[in-house]
Amino acid sequence: MSMTISEKILAKSSGNEKVEAGEIVMADIDTAMVHDLTGPLTLQALEKINTNKVWDPDKIVIPFDHQVPADTLDAAKNHQILRKFVKEQGIKNFYDVYEGVCHQVLPEKGHVLPGTIVVGSDSHTCTHGALGAFGTGIGSTDMAMVFATGQLWFKVPETLQFNVTGDLKENVTSKDVILNIIGQIGQDGARYKACEYTGETVQNMDMSDRMVLSNMAIECGGKTGIVPADKITDEYLKNRTTKQYTKFTTDKDAASLEVMDIDVSDLEPQVACPNYVDNVKPASEVEDVEIDQVFIGSCTNGRLKDLEQAARVLKGNKINPGVRTLVIPASRTIYKQALDEGLMDIFVDAGALICNPCCGPCLGGHVGVIGDGEVSLSTSNRNFKGRQGSPEGKVYLSSPIVAAESAITGHITAPEKK
Amino acid sequence: MSMTISEKILAKSSGNEKVEAGEIVMADIDTAMVHDLTGPLTLQALEKINTNKVWDPDKIVIPFDHQVPADTLDAAKNHQILRKFVKEQGIKNFYDVYEGVCHQVLPEKGHVLPGTIVVGSDSHTCTHGALGAFGTGIGSTDMAMVFATGQLWFKVPETLQFNVTGDLKENVTSKDVILNIIGQIGQDGARYKACEYTGETVQNMDMSDRMVLSNMAIECGGKTGIVPADKITDEYLKNRTTKQYTKFTTDKDAASLEVMDIDVSDLEPQVACPNYVDNVKPASEVEDVEIDQVFIGSCTNGRLKDLEQAARVLKGNKINPGVRTLVIPASRTIYKQALDEGLMDIFVDAGALICNPCCGPCLGGHVGVIGDGEVSLSTSNRNFKGRQGSPEGKVYLSSPIVAAESAITGHITAPEKK
Repeated sequence: MSMTISEKILAKSSGNEKVEAGEIVMADIDTAMVHDLTGPLTLQALEKINTNKVWDPDKIVIPFDHQVPADTLDAAKNHQILRKFVKEQGIKNFYDVYEGVCHQVLPEKGHVLPGTIVVGSDSHTCTHGALGAFGTGIGSTDMAMVFATGQLWFKVPETLQFNVTGDLKENVTSKDVILNIIGQIGQDGARYKACEYTGETVQNMDMSDRMVLSNMAIECGGKTGIVPADKITDEYLKNRTTKQYTKFTTDKDAASLEVMDIDVSDLEPQVACPNYVDNVKPASEVEDVEIDQVFIGSCTNGRLKDLEQAARVLKGNKINPGVRTLVIPASRTIYKQALDEGLMDIFVDAGALICNPCCGPCLGGHVGVIGDGEVSLSTSNRNFKGRQGSPEGKVYLSSPIVAAESAITGHITAPEKK
Repeated sequence: MSMTISEKILAKSSGNEKVEAGEIVMADIDTAMVHDLTGPLTLQALEKINTNKVWDPDKIVIPFDHQVPADTLDAAKNHQILRKFVKEQGIKNFYDVYEGVCHQVLPEKGHVLPGTIVVGSDSHTCTHGALGAFGTGIGSTDMAMVFATGQLWFKVPETLQFNVTGDLKENVTSKDVILNIIGQIGQDGARYKACEYTGETVQNMDMSDRMVLSNMAIECGGKTGIVPADKITDEYLKNRTTKQYTKFTTDKDAASLEVMDIDVSDLEPQVACPNYVDNVKPASEVEDVEIDQVFIGSCTNGRLKDLEQAARVLKGNKINPGVRTLVIPASRTIYKQALDEGLMDIFVDAGALICNPCCGPCLGGHVGVIGDGEVSLSTSNRNFKGRQGSPEGKVYLSSPIVAAESAITGHITAPEKK
């Protein structure tokens, strides 16, 4: 009964001994997340099905992150609707405008366990695959059914395993790895497949780097993006949960498994160019692109390690005055850690603007919207037309290191080869 | 030829030996400020009068503070319009989305000198009276005429001098003094008068406290709010300007001078209650008011001293989880100072949210909008219906000390009497 990790999780959660790719199963949900933008839509759908009580308030997590603090009256009202719901339903795992970006807050607060199913009304819920969970984004209406019944149907996905080997050169990060992968397979290269990241390079990555890989699985169409849970996962969870969990692995002879070998030994820093996430080039080939804004943050690259990498580049340097550089830690915890490590001093001294933990410019509707003809270099995950504001603007994606280097020079800049 | 400070400034600037209250004069402008919200309106008006070049680019100051970083596409476009104008006109005194709130940035960067006329397309331009300038808010269309000609007409105002005496008790601040004054004279009590703050209490105040008094002159209808320049002004300006300036004083027998004596020895912490800035009560009388949001910041109370006072209260305490507490330094310089002094650690540890320097919830249109039925306690300057968002919300105004105390308890709280 050889299976992939995804199949094993879906089998367990649907009460089956074995499931096969293509099969439809009804699975029990372990963790269900809505945020301030999608939560109200879920509640509207929930109202229609006349459910007074959610199936299990302890399995629901609600962080506010997209429009925090409320920037419009509509946002304020959405927040109020959800605060009322949280109170009425006795939902304890509620994180108001302070706490940070959902895909950071969930693992940080111990809501994501290996071998479980995590659904979220946000497409980057695949991030939680970094902990060996089956994390996937679902629509707000589907989420209403989860809230009501605790279950959801899934078509069991095939698995596309990326077997990543080779040592990354200095200044080359997991962001460059995933951008390169997406560039190779295209934005629909893993459509409805479970991406799985394995190989010595991934095994050596810390949780922060793994989350970057998992986060962007959806950008090549992946249903989820799983890193097999291991000792690093255990270490990450040690002080975050006391619950038991299962660390599944993919059997090499699983029928639905396809493996793609990727050697990253020679990989250079990468940039995804407008307006497609798979329009990926080495940073050194797009150095003539002048930029107006840099965003260091998001659920992709707003973690402490990302800020440390950016700070290392910015320390003692001045940001080009023509480049608005926004540094947005992905959570309050990270904000505090960055304060403690003196990173905030480095950012302010360099001329960056530090915002409160939130999704920032990534959603193009709150902090750091770009205007017509403006160019953003962003450590986030999406660069389609209009993503960060004007459809006449352009968004490039990179690692925090490339973003920080470019903030200084005013144009896209590959870090010096060491 | 006895005159008030305002008369002396307007006489000098209009080339007259003497002016009298009620007279209309055409005066030369020393400093003209527009920000990101009012600047584009000024440019629209400027276009109609077909002026290619502003009268003097070095006398124009443009800070972005209301919608920073851009929260909408319209805001982003407004920013672009102004950046283009700044470049075309060779305006050096331009402060992009990083720098902070206009009424903090102007004095901080040495753009405000005693004895000068400072006009701004923002009603709280009276703040600059704290340095002995005639600072006043003007409309965006009037500002277009200033940009074109460097001049503007003024009806010379009468002067209402507040002679403030007595030592303030601990936990009583200049914010309590000005709220008390406004409560006494009403929101139109100084209509089109130049407010002047004198007396030993004001003479002993540092620039930060004086700016609070001047800032709120408009809230009782004042045309400006002047503190006579003195050694404390010189000290403030020492490292900010090399220019010469004149420190005018009001002659005691000036014809248009009216003096009101105010003894603040027994003053208690004050709160302006909804929906009128003159609905002022001792904080101890409104302690039953529960609050949803606290805002510590703004051009009124977002300076280092304000943050220090709030931090002193919050240190070692936890903010009530029901109270969203936003701390927003009024400028990048203050942000950095607060970082250096460890205040940010105190705020984050207490559970506050630190935002980037900006106007914050004060304008009710960007950061921290309140919803229906929500109650905000704010260190800013206005509490009319709908000011911070929903017309069904309520805004109370107080000092940073009362705001911080209340953030901990969850309801309006007078600091303990010492």
